[in-house]
Amino acid sequence: MIIVMGNKSPIEEIQRVSEELSIWDVTLEKSIGKHKVVIGVVGDTEEIDPKQIQNLSPFIEQVLRVKKPFKRASLEFRYGEPTEVVVPTPNGSITFGQNHPLVIVAGPCSVENEEMIVETALRVRAAGAQFLRGGAYKPRTSPYAFQGHGESALSLLAKARLASGLGIITEVMDTSDLDKVASVADIVQIGARNMQNFSLLKKVGATGKPVLLKRGLSATIEEWLMAAEYILDTGNPNVILCERGIRSFDRQYTRNTLDISAIPVLRSLTHLPIMIDPSHATGKSEYVSTMAMAAIAAGTDSLMIEVHPNPAKALSDGPQSLTVEGFEQFMQEIAGLGRFFGRWTQDRSPSATLSLQVSSTTAIFSG
Amino acid sequence: MIIVMGNKSPIEEIQRVSEELSIWDVTLEKSIGKHKVVIGVVGDTEEIDPKQIQNLSPFIEQVLRVKKPFKRASLEFRYGEPTEVVVPTPNGSITFGQNHPLVIVAGPCSVENEEMIVETALRVRAAGAQFLRGGAYKPRTSPYAFQGHGESALSLLAKARLASGLGIITEVMDTSDLDKVASVADIVQIGARNMQNFSLLKKVGATGKPVLLKRGLSATIEEWLMAAEYILDTGNPNVILCERGIRSFDRQYTRNTLDISAIPVLRSLTHLPIMIDPSHATGKSEYVSTMAMAAIAAGTDSLMIEVHPNPAKALSDGPQSLTVEGFEQFMQEIAGLGRFFGRWTQDRSPSATLSLQVSSTTAIFSG
Amino acid sequence: MIIVMGNKSPIEEIQRVSEELSIWDVTLEKSIGKHKVVIGVVGDTEEIDPKQIQNLSPFIEQVLRVKKPFKRASLEFRYGEPTEVVVPTPNGSITFGQNHPLVIVAGPCSVENEEMIVETALRVRAAGAQFLRGGAYKPRTSPYAFQGHGESALSLLAKARLASGLGIITEVMDTSDLDKVASVADIVQIGARNMQNFSLLKKVGATGKPVLLKRGLSATIEEWLMAAEYILDTGNPNVILCERGIRSFDRQYTRNTLDISAIPVLRSLTHLPIMIDPSHATGKSEYVSTMAMAAIAAGTDSLMIEVHPNPAKALSDGPQSLTVEGFEQFMQEIAGLGRFFGRWTQDRSPSATLSLQVSSTTAIFSG
Amino acid sequence: MIIVMGNKSPIEEIQRVSEELSIWDVTLEKSIGKHKVVIGVVGDTEEIDPKQIQNLSPFIEQVLRVKKPFKRASLEFRYGEPTEVVVPTPNGSITFGQNHPLVIVAGPCSVENEEMIVETALRVRAAGAQFLRGGAYKPRTSPYAFQGHGESALSLLAKARLASGLGIITEVMDTSDLDKVASVADIVQIGARNMQNFSLLKKVGATGKPVLLKRGLSATIEEWLMAAEYILDTGNPNVILCERGIRSFDRQYTRNTLDISAIPVLRSLTHLPIMIDPSHATGKSEYVSTMAMAAIAAGTDSLMIEVHPNPAKALSDGPQSLTVEGFEQFMQEIAGLGRFFGRWTQDRSPSATLSLQVSSTTAIFSG
Repeated sequence: MIIVMGNKSPIEEIQRVSEELSIWDVTLEKSIGKHKVVIGVVGDTEEIDPKQIQNLSPFIEQVLRVKKPFKRASLEFRYGEPTEVVVPTPNGSITFGQNHPLVIVAGPCSVENEEMIVETALRVRAAGAQFLRGGAYKPRTSPYAFQGHGESALSLLAKARLASGLGIITEVMDTSDLDKVASVADIVQIGARNMQNFSLLKKVGATGKPVLLKRGLSATIEEWLMAAEYILDTGNPNVILCERGIRSFDRQYTRNTLDISAIPVLRSLTHLPIMIDPSHATGKSEYVSTMAMAAIAAGTDSLMIEVHPNPAKALSDGPQSLTVEGFEQFMQEIAGLGRFFGRWTQDRSPSATLSLQVSSTTAIFSG
Repeated sequence: MIIVMGNKSPIEEIQRVSEELSIWDVTLEKSIGKHKVVIGVVGDTEEIDPKQIQNLSPFIEQVLRVKKPFKRASLEFRYGEPTEVVVPTPNGSITFGQNHPLVIVAGPCSVENEEMIVETALRVRAAGAQFLRGGAYKPRTSPYAFQGHGESALSLLAKARLASGLGIITEVMDTSDLDKVASVADIVQIGARNMQNFSLLKKVGATGKPVLLKRGLSATIEEWLMAAEYILDTGNPNVILCERGIRSFDRQYTRNTLDISAIPVLRSLTHLPIMIDPSHATGKSEYVSTMAMAAIAAGTDSLMIEVHPNPAKALSDGPQSLTVEGFEQFMQEIAGLGRFFGRWTQDRSPSATLSLQVSSTTAIFSG
Repeated sequence: MIIVMGNKSPIEEIQRVSEELSIWDVTLEKSIGKHKVVIGVVGDTEEIDPKQIQNLSPFIEQVLRVKKPFKRASLEFRYGEPTEVVVPTPNGSITFGQNHPLVIVAGPCSVENEEMIVETALRVRAAGAQFLRGGAYKPRTSPYAFQGHGESALSLLAKARLASGLGIITEVMDTSDLDKVASVADIVQIGARNMQNFSLLKKVGATGKPVLLKRGLSATIEEWLMAAEYILDTGNPNVILCERGIRSFDRQYTRNTLDISAIPVLRSLTHLPIMIDPSHATGKSEYVSTMAMAAIAAGTDSLMIEVHPNPAKALSDGPQSLTVEGFEQFMQEIAGLGRFFGRWTQDRSPSATLSLQVSSTTAIFSG
Repeated sequence: MIIVMGNKSPIEEIQRVSEELSIWDVTLEKSIGKHKVVIGVVGDTEEIDPKQIQNLSPFIEQVLRVKKPFKRASLEFRYGEPTEVVVPTPNGSITFGQNHPLVIVAGPCSVENEEMIVETALRVRAAGAQFLRGGAYKPRTSPYAFQGHGESALSLLAKARLASGLGIITEVMDTSDLDKVASVADIVQIGARNMQNFSLLKKVGATGKPVLLKRGLSATIEEWLMAAEYILDTGNPNVILCERGIRSFDRQYTRNTLDISAIPVLRSLTHLPIMIDPSHATGKSEYVSTMAMAAIAAGTDSLMIEVHPNPAKALSDGPQSLTVEGFEQFMQEIAGLGRFFGRWTQDRSPSATLSLQVSSTTAIFSG
């Protein structure tokens, strides 16, 4: 941190400011020039608010942060080595990370009923997904819109997990639902609207569960990493960052603007793995495949794709959902590119075990 | 709601779409032209999601909402009559509304200690404020920044309330703190970052307490009114809307952009009272007075002003705080304009009762 | 300007950077601490591009601008004294400036025909306007929309000027039309879309005519002042800055977001006079009066109001235009507030001379 | 276009509105329901401004555009067939289009001197570029920044063209420079700041030269296509659309936000070829390669890459420039992906002819 004071600063004032700074555990390097006095503040300055320093004296012209305000999320914190978030699922452990195959998350916006969620799980698993997404609690702009089936949807997710072997990703909106959600989810999602719900961040972090942290609609990269820092600061290192489109001035043809450049920017700032959600970002199923390709080429570690067995009847977010058949085709489209970049898992195709599971689950429906 | 179908829509498809629509309690008005088929959907269409309708058929070219998606927040809901939010305080009931004097809310960003909050309360009361703001739970971008003193700060607010007679406005961030906050606050604040924390909106609404709903950083007017609708839908009619600056592309000289035009826009859409917070909007104390003047001229019902006895030592948001003396001067500056618009209360000046309270409170400190 | 180099910078590299900097006429103040090397660059750093400096060495961690990049537009350039832009008109000289009455500019978006523009001029003059606005060349999003009557419209503006005595403000879009426009206009307008048309800025500046510089749709305050600097740099000091709404994420109820806070921010940065255009900012005539009031309260020096004798038939921008009667009422509404702030001219009401002119002009029509 | 009138609209008013509409060459389809009157307007409605219609009657509740406002730029205008822009260059004709290899444009921000531009041209040609970019007239935020060498730079571009055989892309900022620019450029560039400089669009279009139209900083997709429509409307079909980053709320780590989703959106709306400029979009050379990969995966037809022989000494935009060596490596990096998508030209590697040219040009320097 650098403090610039004007050339008319009295020597006592410079002294006073230096003393005020001594409450923090920092070293000061003063350089008194003819025109400006520059005080370099060295140490753990992440915890110092530049605005507070600015306030110390009217002679302070500028306070400039040189170090980044995040620490545990920073690339330096792990000496440049990428984090691997390893998530146990019934089908085995899946790793999110730069040196691992692309992880594919698929599923509907909301869990609507048992048949729908189990069928979707089995089909996206067969097509190569490793995680099932599905909302039990849904943040909706309107109080009159479908709000998710809540607790009962969680038990349906548990069934879909059992039937398909997929890991489960589902969102928590309220700290009072956290235990229930964490008991079912393999990865707990914090949605875009709650990215700066700091109480939720702390409590979700404290569960120790892997956390999927979606970027807020108009959150800067720095605010997003600071939100991750809240989770990391609880001692939970398993955070995955999900870009899902930011709000821009143009919302006519896409719902949000997918910020693909967040990928290389995050790579230069943090060790955390990255997921891209082209479904929510564009809001239109016809753009999902193209934007997923762009994300893979830019190096994403994971993709989240909305899939619904019958988008026309979806209780929420139908227009952005692929059909199950559309998802099967999508997986074929991206597989070549995944292989080109050496990030396609060998055994993504349905295994014998899976076939077995399919038949046993089919029994559930016929039973 | 209007559904436009293309000129090649088969008659069976038009029929099918009409039947699908019958699950809602609406009346259809079909008009089949040479080029387009237009289906007018009349009734309680607030509850219908245009995106869901769009999905019903590939022949649907456009779905256009004619009615507004909010109902209880709409001006029509009260036949154009403005809501009056009446809040009991120790100093008597205060009314927020278009036909009432400006309500002035003042106080520090966070409650720091007893002396500080009680002194500030007494001084802003003496200068003419009716409410004390002060954060017990603080949403901070960084986990390393001061997070508020929490529960103990609530009890200090209770003391300040008793000492000054001012009503208390303080923020709740987590549903699990709601009971504690609601037991002290006369008005419960939902902060900008939680505007779309729908669980919180529902539970705060259900307390029946008056709610101050701050606009999200990049929330549209419609999203903001939909958030208010969540509260109103719990049966709680006491919502005050607070504009506190939106995020724009330019953040160099002001922290946010105060959207003064929200005032006339809200007036044309809703009956709810309006508050303007120029302190958070600009982030600089030197701009607060000018922007407050603009807000008064545009017809705001209330102002929220940050005041700190010693901004240079503030644990949060110092640069945007007025000193107590600055606030006294501010009140004198705006009084003339308030009177010009007939919105200045007669008995804002400190009363005999207050003097009495001041002396009894001073005793607290000396005790 | 401050250059921060890392603690591993070789002494030769620091030396090399210092030498590279010597091509500018600046003084360097080096301070070599244990952790960082800070080089203060003192002098006319407005002309140095921080990005270029950053490029000088990979050891440079940050380049921080301390001084503002504009010079002639800065408040310091005139030692804090506000500029007065004095514009001769047939009715006498009108002064734009902080210590002068509000200047009112009114008129239609485009000049449509002689009767329309002359009638509007006479009526807005009678209601108290000092300038007539009217477009001869119109920037329109669509090539199929009315583009203005061009040169012939300029001669109609000249007639309206003669008939009413009002000064003329009209926009130039192309350097090749500049001579024609400047021969008629008392103030040449540069529109929002051309704010960074630097060729135009230079050539308009060189005419010596007063210039009305509209803020670009997504121009930062700094970019706007830098555009003004282009004009000032030609030796032309007569620049008026016009805020007309910026582009934000919400365009549902207002076309743009009127940035009222630009007024106090500009006051703290520049000596140039300020105009506010609530008509283009909101895009809706019903919000014009409220936003004009806000602008007056915030200290604007001038207002630009769209007025059309028959908005429903306007060839462009009808919905934001006041009728002539609406404008008369508007002037009555704002007069009180103008007087409250001591910024209402005494003799704004129609004078005897004007009455004479009205009758002689009426003759034009009857002739 | 659809006009919705309220249920209390008098029959005479509906009749009057219908008559007013008859001045356009459109067919009306009225449907009078119990609650709303809907008038469908069929025909060439691109030329009708919805706001003007709105103004026709206070009983009109909404005017909704069903057709797109652009016509010649629309995909339908060419029945879904992509445009091929064929540009003759000394090295042969190069085609921009969806069914053609990626076209690579490379070169410095500004032309600085002969050696620099000729050397860069030869080296980027050898690495596989087909066009040389280089600014003679530079739009710069500050009047004190380097403005380009103007006319003399044009003659250096002509020399570089001769020496390398590359086509030339350079920007025109002022209609008065157009003849000079068009005499040297193979493709005339309209910069982001001039995207809505409609006089320039018309005159550049009228030259018949291929036009590179950069998207404005905060231009919507629709405004961008309308700007293209200005050029197409002059009878010039050779327009290439270049996305170069849009302005968002976050400018900390990238200068702009590259809107990759513009690629699939444009594909669904227009037949025009697309170029992506990752250099200006990110403002940082280290992100250029990753974003170029994303653009290729999303289907761009062309890339514009900033290359400077010595970025540290660049007179403008150094930090975003690749070195010549960096560009050679970049071309190797993207070649594989280009081939994967079948969009890499076979003979991009330096040919015998080129080697010849290199040696003969080297002679220029040694001469």
